[in-house]
Amino acid sequence: MSTLKERSSAIEAVASKMNKQIYKNGSAKKTGTPKLEYQKEVSKVVTLEQAIKGSGLKDGMTISFHHHFRGGDKVVNLVVDKLAQMGFKNLSLAASSLQDVHEPLIEHIKNGVITSISTSGMRGKLADAVSKGLMDEPVVFRSHGGRGSAIANGDLHIDVAFIGASSCDPLGNACGFSRSENAKSICGSLGYALPDAQYADKVVILTDDLVRYPNTPNSISESNVDYVVEVESVGDSSKIASGAIRDTKNPRDILLAKQAAKVIINSGYFKDGFSIQTGSGGASLAAVKYIRESMIEKGIKASYALGGITAHMVKMFEEGLIERLIDVQSFDKVAAESLMKNEMHKEVSANEYASADEMGSATHYLDMVILSALEVDVNFNVNVLVGSDGIIRGAIGGHPDTAADSALSIIVCPLLRGRIPCVVNEVTTLITPGSTVDVVVTEYGIAVNPARPEIAQRLKEAGLNIVDIHSLKERADKIIGQADPLPFGDKVVGVVMNRDGSVMDVIKNIKD
Amino acid sequence: MSTLKERSSAIEAVASKMNKQIYKNGSAKKTGTPKLEYQKEVSKVVTLEQAIKGSGLKDGMTISFHHHFRGGDKVVNLVVDKLAQMGFKNLSLAASSLQDVHEPLIEHIKNGVITSISTSGMRGKLADAVSKGLMDEPVVFRSHGGRGSAIANGDLHIDVAFIGASSCDPLGNACGFSRSENAKSICGSLGYALPDAQYADKVVILTDDLVRYPNTPNSISESNVDYVVEVESVGDSSKIASGAIRDTKNPRDILLAKQAAKVIINSGYFKDGFSIQTGSGGASLAAVKYIRESMIEKGIKASYALGGITAHMVKMFEEGLIERLIDVQSFDKVAAESLMKNEMHKEVSANEYASADEMGSATHYLDMVILSALEVDVNFNVNVLVGSDGIIRGAIGGHPDTAADSALSIIVCPLLRGRIPCVVNEVTTLITPGSTVDVVVTEYGIAVNPARPEIAQRLKEAGLNIVDIHSLKERADKIIGQADPLPFGDKVVGVVMNRDGSVMDVIKNIKD
Repeated sequence: MSTLKERSSAIEAVASKMNKQIYKNGSAKKTGTPKLEYQKEVSKVVTLEQAIKGSGLKDGMTISFHHHFRGGDKVVNLVVDKLAQMGFKNLSLAASSLQDVHEPLIEHIKNGVITSISTSGMRGKLADAVSKGLMDEPVVFRSHGGRGSAIANGDLHIDVAFIGASSCDPLGNACGFSRSENAKSICGSLGYALPDAQYADKVVILTDDLVRYPNTPNSISESNVDYVVEVESVGDSSKIASGAIRDTKNPRDILLAKQAAKVIINSGYFKDGFSIQTGSGGASLAAVKYIRESMIEKGIKASYALGGITAHMVKMFEEGLIERLIDVQSFDKVAAESLMKNEMHKEVSANEYASADEMGSATHYLDMVILSALEVDVNFNVNVLVGSDGIIRGAIGGHPDTAADSALSIIVCPLLRGRIPCVVNEVTTLITPGSTVDVVVTEYGIAVNPARPEIAQRLKEAGLNIVDIHSLKERADKIIGQADPLPFGDKVVGVVMNRDGSVMDVIKNIKD
Repeated sequence: MSTLKERSSAIEAVASKMNKQIYKNGSAKKTGTPKLEYQKEVSKVVTLEQAIKGSGLKDGMTISFHHHFRGGDKVVNLVVDKLAQMGFKNLSLAASSLQDVHEPLIEHIKNGVITSISTSGMRGKLADAVSKGLMDEPVVFRSHGGRGSAIANGDLHIDVAFIGASSCDPLGNACGFSRSENAKSICGSLGYALPDAQYADKVVILTDDLVRYPNTPNSISESNVDYVVEVESVGDSSKIASGAIRDTKNPRDILLAKQAAKVIINSGYFKDGFSIQTGSGGASLAAVKYIRESMIEKGIKASYALGGITAHMVKMFEEGLIERLIDVQSFDKVAAESLMKNEMHKEVSANEYASADEMGSATHYLDMVILSALEVDVNFNVNVLVGSDGIIRGAIGGHPDTAADSALSIIVCPLLRGRIPCVVNEVTTLITPGSTVDVVVTEYGIAVNPARPEIAQRLKEAGLNIVDIHSLKERADKIIGQADPLPFGDKVVGVVMNRDGSVMDVIKNIKD
């Protein structure tokens, strides 16, 4: 053995060559505290105010939120109220989406606390006010995949992410459900929050169920978390299936759903191992029921369903009709609970779901998607964001992502909603380009994009009523008459980004 | 509605202000190929040579490997052979650990293909040759937590990671097990490969079971993967429980195991909700059996077991004695299979396991750990890397990480191995500082670190034979006599890094 002296001079020489410090014995300190106590003492749990202060948040920075509780979300209002109270100004709010419940943001915008917003969508009084010119900066609208890409490539830099979670341990292992007896909420997948957790400079978890370490299995790792804040409630799970998501009893929706199912079944893609996503519209959700019947009848199984997972999908998964569920967002409580209990029901991030920059994102391997629309135009362009009255009333969601990447995209849309035509000459706002839209299903016939003649052929052979999209438009015109131009002003209140980061459209203010 | 002209000038103005491109319609192209076919056409699957070329690997760069197949690993030799064939020189090999099976690296070192190595350990002929001065650059030894930290903080930059996986889809979703009927191998957790997957510039997955997309649940995401290479075999799972890991029938080991179990049971930490890790030594593994009996008798349950998960731990988990398994490395096939089927058996990365830089890494919440040793000295310092003959014959593993972070660290070590004393005046190589070691269990008595008088008191009260560590050393001397100094040379063949990135010790060449 070398003598101590020889050894320490060799250590010195090596450390100097490697440009490293020399280890000082005793620098590692032990605590004898039993760890159940220790994790209470040494933890990331602080008050919301401490988390905000500790995060280094400053005026002008960007904060982010997810919308997995949809209409039941309690985090955005809670945090922004606190930020207002603490005197913050000029913040950018980067939400994965915003809902009716976020109406209180109007006051925070008026008071200069929030001066810019990016989101997938907006509804209710906030959307109304924004449409009429509430904000100086236009709201930036991105698809779910587009937001994931923008966060990953730095286009959307998040300084502090505030993430509501249904359970979290004191070290930050967080989840959209809880296994504890104190569980208060459940939202299932935290998919839209995962890019925020990964890329934000600081990450604050808010939770209404602070559980003992280790909170596994978890979807956000302690690795990515800086602070944990215990709150009374992060969200009302009963309101997840609100907004766009509802089970339809509307006879016209059911008719549309049946037609959409027939398109799927006769498309040429309805084969063993196919993959499918359905959007959040009533008809789109209802179509699943009819597809299920045909799968059973023909002995066809799906390799995966993507979404936007609903109770319908969970049922089919549990029946063995669908092998795997890939879940970026649980659309109802049944889906959220399935994510907790079914191992083959997998949570994915917004990027793993729909990033255009990731060859392996799930949308790229999607055979068919059923989507809804506010408007479709004669060039197959789709608008899901701005109503025909010029008021923002929807969300981009994964619409353009899935339309572009799927082998077959099917838009389900009534010809008319009341006195409003849904098949138009030109969409009010361009969200999903016509080059990515293959089939439009209306109650007056099915239009197939001329770029996909083989699809039209197959559907005709199956006896479906295939029509020219111009004839649908003309039919709407005949019933309703030509609509007056909308009274748009000159102020740009919204910008629609394509999923590749380019500017696709603008939304102008609508006059009262 | 604004006219097209008004709209496009507004889009131009906004895009210019935001410094963005304007979306060009039609830039998104659709493919109508059914996705089961598409995923064969558009995939990351290439040959190993194509992956290496595509990765941009150049002479002088760093490649990395994991050791989850331990003695059964087939990836290191396969890849390095190919790199040699392709003419690469002067590569750094950053393995999570190396085994007997990696003997062929000797030739690659002699030929200048590999000129530096970092690893947790080394065994067999490669270790022998390195100990005798094979390499010009000293091998850098790091603990598992230390390697994770070094990768995360950039101290260890990996250019190309080569990761063996038991299943992978064509897009890179990879796993340490396979659910397909073609499964050839299983290693369970890929914990040590996860930092590589996250931080390496390029990631190549090698798999012996290329499965249909989506390969969920998965441990490595397509997000992090650049290439997928199909190979005949990534590893022989029957050889995982080799090297350090073996079930002991040695009566002395069983005696030591029983003593270690008594230490645990009487330590003051054996309470409902405790957490535990056992190392890979025979006695350490055997101790679990006796702890189990006492848990049943006393009605005590563990909140989690950490490791290095073994069949013993899985049994206790399935019996409900352990709530959760936290698995950075599956120590046998039973553990690997449990990871596949038990949702509360959770895979963690090396950083989530034992990073000193992460407040929330699992070792920080560990009550007790049982570890083995090649040597312990009178200052409680431990050596698990270099034999008393001066030859490298082990691995640092998580030894210093768990010793430092646990509330109670217990070293199980015979006083003598044949004619070799294991309790010595000064360890041949310092791996785990005495300040982090609490109890040393030998067949001639149990020594407690004077820094933990309360532990000594509790064990005495339980009737255990508590002795001064100096008396153990003297006893060994009396039986064997003072050992001659080892014939070390002047060349530094290894550097031991502390988990904080400082230099802790050096290993010099041993003369024949």
